[in-house]
Amino acid sequence: MKNIGVIGAGSWGTALALTLSGKGHQVKIWDLDETHLLELGKNRENVRYLPGIPFPSNLRIAKTLQEALKDADVVLFSAPAQHFRSALDNAEPYLRSDMILVNVAKGIEQKTLLRMSEIAFEKLPDARYVTLSGPSHAEEVGRNLPTTVAVASKDLKLAEEVQDIFITDRFRVYTTEDVVGVELGGALKNIIALGAGISDGMGFGDNAKAALMTRGLAEIKRLGVKLGADPATFAGLTGVGDLIVTCTSMHSRNRRCGIMIGEGMDPKEATKKVGMVVEGMFTTEAAYDLAKREQVEMPITEQLYNVINGTTAAKDTVDLLMGREKKHEQD
Amino acid sequence: MKNIGVIGAGSWGTALALTLSGKGHQVKIWDLDETHLLELGKNRENVRYLPGIPFPSNLRIAKTLQEALKDADVVLFSAPAQHFRSALDNAEPYLRSDMILVNVAKGIEQKTLLRMSEIAFEKLPDARYVTLSGPSHAEEVGRNLPTTVAVASKDLKLAEEVQDIFITDRFRVYTTEDVVGVELGGALKNIIALGAGISDGMGFGDNAKAALMTRGLAEIKRLGVKLGADPATFAGLTGVGDLIVTCTSMHSRNRRCGIMIGEGMDPKEATKKVGMVVEGMFTTEAAYDLAKREQVEMPITEQLYNVINGTTAAKDTVDLLMGREKKHEQD
Repeated sequence: MKNIGVIGAGSWGTALALTLSGKGHQVKIWDLDETHLLELGKNRENVRYLPGIPFPSNLRIAKTLQEALKDADVVLFSAPAQHFRSALDNAEPYLRSDMILVNVAKGIEQKTLLRMSEIAFEKLPDARYVTLSGPSHAEEVGRNLPTTVAVASKDLKLAEEVQDIFITDRFRVYTTEDVVGVELGGALKNIIALGAGISDGMGFGDNAKAALMTRGLAEIKRLGVKLGADPATFAGLTGVGDLIVTCTSMHSRNRRCGIMIGEGMDPKEATKKVGMVVEGMFTTEAAYDLAKREQVEMPITEQLYNVINGTTAAKDTVDLLMGREKKHEQD
Repeated sequence: MKNIGVIGAGSWGTALALTLSGKGHQVKIWDLDETHLLELGKNRENVRYLPGIPFPSNLRIAKTLQEALKDADVVLFSAPAQHFRSALDNAEPYLRSDMILVNVAKGIEQKTLLRMSEIAFEKLPDARYVTLSGPSHAEEVGRNLPTTVAVASKDLKLAEEVQDIFITDRFRVYTTEDVVGVELGGALKNIIALGAGISDGMGFGDNAKAALMTRGLAEIKRLGVKLGADPATFAGLTGVGDLIVTCTSMHSRNRRCGIMIGEGMDPKEATKKVGMVVEGMFTTEAAYDLAKREQVEMPITEQLYNVINGTTAAKDTVDLLMGREKKHEQD
């Protein structure tokens, strides 16, 4: 059994802390928000983000980041993608070179357009760093419903160590070496989830949404392959699997935000109303910039970018996409 | 504009007849069920399978099969897959060699294990035969909601003719030469839809269902490629697109049937209760036989086959699938 420090007590960080402590690991969870941290300690459950699931005694609340990381064998980063850099900055003084760093943030850093692992290795070139991603709503993992994820590292032995640490009979963990594919699949699917929400919000049906998801996955893959990902990854759990979960479930903030936009709400107002981070808004901008830089055709991303920035009305995007010239499917 | 005869006035045949007549084609629809046919003529709408959408004047009810096919440029077959052979037998005396035959049935013939196009070309080797498939619930096509499909023929020119005949600004048609991939994607996805329903019926969540769909698509593709399909087709509209629509929507009979089985109902009783053809029940058996014949590993299909035949309880299948040894994702 391991000592594990968890940074970030949102729904996903908490669900994984529960999975790990349920398996017998000694887990300490910490969050930047002191009020939230006090509530966790008082309630012994995450009333705010994952209510109804009591913490076992081996899941403890750390009062400081230093306390969370003291003696840790594994550090789990579950900060939002745009805050990963600062979370890593804050943690750095307490990290040891033998620690395993696992990151579950899905996104691309704004402006730098860096993936999460690029940020980590830029700062800590020799880090024992692993990405965990897949179709995994926190609400379901917290309730111990069957879930599958992948852990990615170029160092397969390291990925297998993390697989051993996390796997249970209800939380199945696969390994892969394709860090680029796993990170891009997890990040870019949020764009399509926004679009799927918009389609739903406009009153379109399952046919339209399935078309959007299929063509969306194709353009995600196109960009991913250009950036060095293995195309097979996009057909896997962190590609199509995560896309399906995010686009079809009301758990998804990105989809909920899209629905409000599709119903006619201003994109900024919709983001505010969701109340949690809507990663897809950042990711759409980042992907739009990446597609331009890499000269990859991403018509759906481009339309969504225009909607978010108010240059195209949501209702006009479907006509633009449906009305393109007659095509062969593989064109 | 064309003269089009439609064989089979279920929900899908009716929806396509509405799309085609809405575009201005002269459409005649016929069904084996005489009572149903009389009702269609009396109500000028398909009250039984697609209620609420009135027929335009250029969508006529044919009293006989001969009348439906007289002067037809295009014959649209929308009989259930297990009845396609007899529908073709019945139509044969009225078919001309210049007619285009379009088939929308999704399935594999029991016992012979033949795909629909194999049945057609066995009987009519020179047929101008095209398969139409994709993520397309009839209920939504009937209401003119945005939908995309693919038309497949080794003769791309012929597929393009059919694309021209069907395409509208709300019904987008792509062409492809991969008949094998399109037919297998459309047929085999019904197996996974049954499984997705079972997962839902057992109270599992979106994570489990996305995992099942992802791993299910992988084994469909494995069998398809062994049988000569282009792997890219399974990432397209007739592969993952149709899989998504079928597995996530309550429109799907296969999923509804699966839900009842997951809730504990006997598979035969569940099929009866759905009241329409549950193609996935036949397809699971056919795919099981094909997998054995072709020596392709299809663990999900195998489990579902055992559930349908009563040799495994539904509740045991998830443990069997989750409990397999630790794996690399691409194994």
